[in-house]
Amino acid sequence: MKKNVLIIGAGGVAQVVAHKCAQHNDILGDLHIASRTRAKCDAIIASVHEKGAMKVPGTFQAHAVNAMDTAAVADLIRQTGVQIVINVGSAFVNKYVLDACIETGVAYIDTAIHEEPDRICEAPPWYGNYEWKKRDLCAEKGVTAILGAGFDPGVVNAYVRFAADEYLDSVTSVDIVDINAGSHGKYFATNFDPEINFREFTGTVYSWQGGKWQENKMFEVGREWDLPVVGKQKAYLSGHDEVHSLSANYPDADIRFWMGFGDHYINVFTVLKNLGLLSEQPVKTAEGQEVIPLKVVKAVLPDPASLAPGYTGKTCIGDFVKGTKDGKEAEVFVYNVADHKEAYEEVGSQGISYTAGVPPVAAALLIAQGTWDVKKMANVEELPARPFLELLGRIGLPSRVVTPEGEDKPI
Amino acid sequence: MKKNVLIIGAGGVAQVVAHKCAQHNDILGDLHIASRTRAKCDAIIASVHEKGAMKVPGTFQAHAVNAMDTAAVADLIRQTGVQIVINVGSAFVNKYVLDACIETGVAYIDTAIHEEPDRICEAPPWYGNYEWKKRDLCAEKGVTAILGAGFDPGVVNAYVRFAADEYLDSVTSVDIVDINAGSHGKYFATNFDPEINFREFTGTVYSWQGGKWQENKMFEVGREWDLPVVGKQKAYLSGHDEVHSLSANYPDADIRFWMGFGDHYINVFTVLKNLGLLSEQPVKTAEGQEVIPLKVVKAVLPDPASLAPGYTGKTCIGDFVKGTKDGKEAEVFVYNVADHKEAYEEVGSQGISYTAGVPPVAAALLIAQGTWDVKKMANVEELPARPFLELLGRIGLPSRVVTPEGEDKPI
Repeated sequence: MKKNVLIIGAGGVAQVVAHKCAQHNDILGDLHIASRTRAKCDAIIASVHEKGAMKVPGTFQAHAVNAMDTAAVADLIRQTGVQIVINVGSAFVNKYVLDACIETGVAYIDTAIHEEPDRICEAPPWYGNYEWKKRDLCAEKGVTAILGAGFDPGVVNAYVRFAADEYLDSVTSVDIVDINAGSHGKYFATNFDPEINFREFTGTVYSWQGGKWQENKMFEVGREWDLPVVGKQKAYLSGHDEVHSLSANYPDADIRFWMGFGDHYINVFTVLKNLGLLSEQPVKTAEGQEVIPLKVVKAVLPDPASLAPGYTGKTCIGDFVKGTKDGKEAEVFVYNVADHKEAYEEVGSQGISYTAGVPPVAAALLIAQGTWDVKKMANVEELPARPFLELLGRIGLPSRVVTPEGEDKPI
Repeated sequence: MKKNVLIIGAGGVAQVVAHKCAQHNDILGDLHIASRTRAKCDAIIASVHEKGAMKVPGTFQAHAVNAMDTAAVADLIRQTGVQIVINVGSAFVNKYVLDACIETGVAYIDTAIHEEPDRICEAPPWYGNYEWKKRDLCAEKGVTAILGAGFDPGVVNAYVRFAADEYLDSVTSVDIVDINAGSHGKYFATNFDPEINFREFTGTVYSWQGGKWQENKMFEVGREWDLPVVGKQKAYLSGHDEVHSLSANYPDADIRFWMGFGDHYINVFTVLKNLGLLSEQPVKTAEGQEVIPLKVVKAVLPDPASLAPGYTGKTCIGDFVKGTKDGKEAEVFVYNVADHKEAYEEVGSQGISYTAGVPPVAAALLIAQGTWDVKKMANVEELPARPFLELLGRIGLPSRVVTPEGEDKPI
């Protein structure tokens, strides 16, 4: 039984994680949050108290830390006595926070693959470049490290495991479809860190098909999907973390990720990309200043957290999982629908942050309760799916399944 | 009789100015060119010699100077013994170079209004903010300062004076139309310094109508024009320097400037502007670096000079001048057609640089010969137009006029 949680990061997702941890502090114990800017942590804690989110009286403390300084993070872990770290900082800090958890022997949870600032879309599988290199060390030291435990990656990985466990004998293909049919009312904004968002789309789109990596460009392959609640939506084959672990765990299945985009998003993206403004490589201005264009684009775009108050509409994220059952072809669709306004009313965040922030708290609760305290490194599809999905349903992210027989029912 | 010329600046327009000065160094005497980066000046002089452009054997020297340092520019003027300065540096340096010419008593020519880096589209008339404040001083010291002597402003101002001198008793409206029907083959590029280019379009569009300033937004007012050679083209009411002097010299006439834009340009511009990437005000990145977005956009766009080798097609810039003649309404259209490829073959520059760079050399020749050595500050429409337009025709920029009777003939 582990308890006491340190949240790394203070963006939109961290806001959700903080509220959800507070709502379950009877189980999770003392809460701490740390980021480069302590004032951001203070603001999040203030919003938690404003909503009266703490289930029982308890500790919630803010700290300043440079999360790329492993020793500083390890010191903070020791000093606060936490046994679980939920890392929802920038993807650039992941490997340093993971190292701090391994060093101190505490559980680690993140929601995205580590990235190096000056590299995009490295060789697949992406987990092999940083995280999986620490797999043996985690097993040796008995450290629980749950990788990619947001919604996608995260819940969508559990959907595959759930479909395989309960409906299929074998899996032949997985199509993960992520549609945000909400509206933020701004000219243009990304739903999470613009830097990370655009980095996903500027490089090669990797999918796993026919037992090998297939390479495409962004917006090269598009397809209309008909989904519950949000209806018919166009989505494009995109690169995404979960493809890189699901392809290792289900090597015989085709694994594809599809992200929905409107024409306006594609136009803005195309202009910025073609001009070179999404580059992670520095350019020099006429005055001799070295600047990374993508960081300037990030600076002028709305802070994703600022979108929350006016955001309306729904998201639908789900997995079409095909395979065989009793020798016949069968298909299962597992999905969640979330509402931007409801998310804002509950935790002060928009729906994309909500769907990303609730799952790592569910993971923390499962570690605290022992169910997922596996004392090794694991991707979500390697862990029991039903307890995770049922718990998510109870704490705000209910999933449903359309069975091979066509019945649409809650999990 | 003045001679010996110093060119300030080393961009695409300076390249044209250098070649044209060299072609007339029998009249202009010693030539000098100075910019922040001396290597750029060396490259221009090398291209002059490569084309064998020097009419007679003579001096052409490169210098490094910070053109925003009036004392340094004045020192260079004294040291080189020049009597004419052609300033085609950034619009940010104009007032400093003008001051250096006043201090040393030499003739000054520029092609654009002075701008302060952190301000766009100041109160009209723009010339009143910086240049015209030195009008009395120039008259007092007998300094010839020709403002805005490029194509637009410049030749288009002379077109108004020409129409008024030779065809009209009074001027009631001037519509200046600038169409570039050429193709550079890049995804996107501006034809001159992107920073100056975009700054023209991000603020208020001032036009002079009904005896007062009218304010519009860019791309708010569009109209199709049917022009010689380039045909029917859509152009938009835009802010431009010449409106601010012509309105003072022809206060009873409506003065409008129309710039042609394709849908693709407008889309890219709209995306960049709406995102805030064309702002001249600094933003701070997440890492705390202060950056001016517009300077980063400039850094990622092609150098306008680099467009020259592949540029094809033609430009048409002309003035529709309406008024009265012998009590009846009359219209004159005065225009030039230039060819990108021919410009490149002659001086190694594209057509936009060519049309901007030849006129200030014509102005320098007219000063050298005394015709325009007026020993005061003047905008181009305040000077005799016919000698300027005839000289331009002889040195590479022939103009034509469509008379009130509909005859299309050379000037």
